Amino acid sequence: MVNEVTLAEAKSMLDAAESKAEEMDLKMNLAVTNSEGNLLAFRRMDGAKLVAANIAQNKAYTAAAVKKPTHDLKEGAEPGGDVYGLNTTDNGRVVVFGGGFPVERDGDVVGAIGASGADVSEDMEISKAGLDAFQ
Amino acid sequence: MVNEVTLAEAKSMLDAAESKAEEMDLKMNLAVTNSEGNLLAFRRMDGAKLVAANIAQNKAYTAAAVKKPTHDLKEGAEPGGDVYGLNTTDNGRVVVFGGGFPVERDGDVVGAIGASGADVSEDMEISKAGLDAFQ
Amino acid sequence: MVNEVTLAEAKSMLDAAESKAEEMDLKMNLAVTNSEGNLLAFRRMDGAKLVAANIAQNKAYTAAAVKKPTHDLKEGAEPGGDVYGLNTTDNGRVVVFGGGFPVERDGDVVGAIGASGADVSEDMEISKAGLDAFQ
Amino acid sequence: MVNEVTLAEAKSMLDAAESKAEEMDLKMNLAVTNSEGNLLAFRRMDGAKLVAANIAQNKAYTAAAVKKPTHDLKEGAEPGGDVYGLNTTDNGRVVVFGGGFPVERDGDVVGAIGASGADVSEDMEISKAGLDAFQ
Repeated sequence: MVNEVTLAEAKSMLDAAESKAEEMDLKMNLAVTNSEGNLLAFRRMDGAKLVAANIAQNKAYTAAAVKKPTHDLKEGAEPGGDVYGLNTTDNGRVVVFGGGFPVERDGDVVGAIGASGADVSEDMEISKAGLDAFQ
Repeated sequence: MVNEVTLAEAKSMLDAAESKAEEMDLKMNLAVTNSEGNLLAFRRMDGAKLVAANIAQNKAYTAAAVKKPTHDLKEGAEPGGDVYGLNTTDNGRVVVFGGGFPVERDGDVVGAIGASGADVSEDMEISKAGLDAFQ
Repeated sequence: MVNEVTLAEAKSMLDAAESKAEEMDLKMNLAVTNSEGNLLAFRRMDGAKLVAANIAQNKAYTAAAVKKPTHDLKEGAEPGGDVYGLNTTDNGRVVVFGGGFPVERDGDVVGAIGASGADVSEDMEISKAGLDAFQ
Repeated sequence: MVNEVTLAEAKSMLDAAESKAEEMDLKMNLAVTNSEGNLLAFRRMDGAKLVAANIAQNKAYTAAAVKKPTHDLKEGAEPGGDVYGLNTTDNGRVVVFGGGFPVERDGDVVGAIGASGADVSEDMEISKAGLDAFQ
């Protein structure tokens, strides 16, 4: 587990995502996992939706487990897509809409971040702000 | 359960599938179950996606449990299909995209193989290479 | 849900617990829930045991859900106790050894904290350090 | 995930454990996980008990997640023990009898092995044979 996201890095990412959410006046759930999808850090902002607590964690899980941003999975998982039904695999942990990003270092996926609580485009923007704080 | 896939046969199938994956430069999860869908052998190649570990096992489970290749289930499970929602039955274990094949001997399903980690067509090709090693 | 632990308060509690763990040279999982047992904040320190990630969260869940410190549940849950088997209820989320404390304000339980990763007495000391930061 | 058990190493461990089981005329389930408890390789020997398929995987999971051999957990988890009820935490994945060992390299836990199917002392002997093949 050398090269993994550290807790200090996870906190920095969550700080940046939380600041972005406050700036946008949104109440978010924010999660960071390691490369094997296990939770490293989590925050539920005051008043944030309960459903998004699970979704934020699973967006991060998905981005780590698939090694892709979650919005890349949408088209294939929809009716007519190559992997229709992807979202119901893996015990329902696979989220196929935006807001989860893998975190890479030296070309390796070393963790992931997920944000949930607002519109998908807002979730993506906030999650990306967290990701940018890592890079 | 006479006539079931043996562990020796399962290993041969996984060896063939793994060789095919290496030849194609892909990192796969590979699984073989018996006719009752219970896992006989599993391998996660170095660097293979975590999500595909569950999916490979459930592709093999599905092929054994339905007695059909998983890609045969896609059309019926999509909106408008006869069994729309099939993928959310059986505790979410039913995978409805390609990469799982039943293994038959003397006309009986005696096990199944599943591969996951790449595009569906690649998953199918690698799973089929494992199946061919049995027959 | 007025009067609940806020995210700012949860962070302060986790900061205090994390500092205590560093001082004791221990690698911990630390969790804070609201009064309904839902996760508000979580941290897994670098190198902390995976099993303790789940246990820390469920210690906090239990303390909120039972409105008692988790170590108070041990005697009753053991063979011969009044509520033998308590730990296998509620989908296995009830932890009956020490390290979880309810967080109270004005006589009401407004959340809970849980720590896991070391010996029970150490888990309790670290969780208590987090609790003290609230009060 | 540098420094993790590789698939080649996992196969060598399972080969050694399987040879030991054949020598002892026992039918075993054998599993290797990475350091985060996710399955890398699995084998169910012909005629091995179904229940032991799950137990072997969870012994390996436990040894990775707790960073200790599973037999070390027995005393504490029993009635009167410090962590009575440990085995019902973490979604019931924690096994507290022998047969699971962490795999270490350079002082770090980089994976785990689990064996199940016979008496505990036999499970431990077979699992240990697999572990020895790594070291």
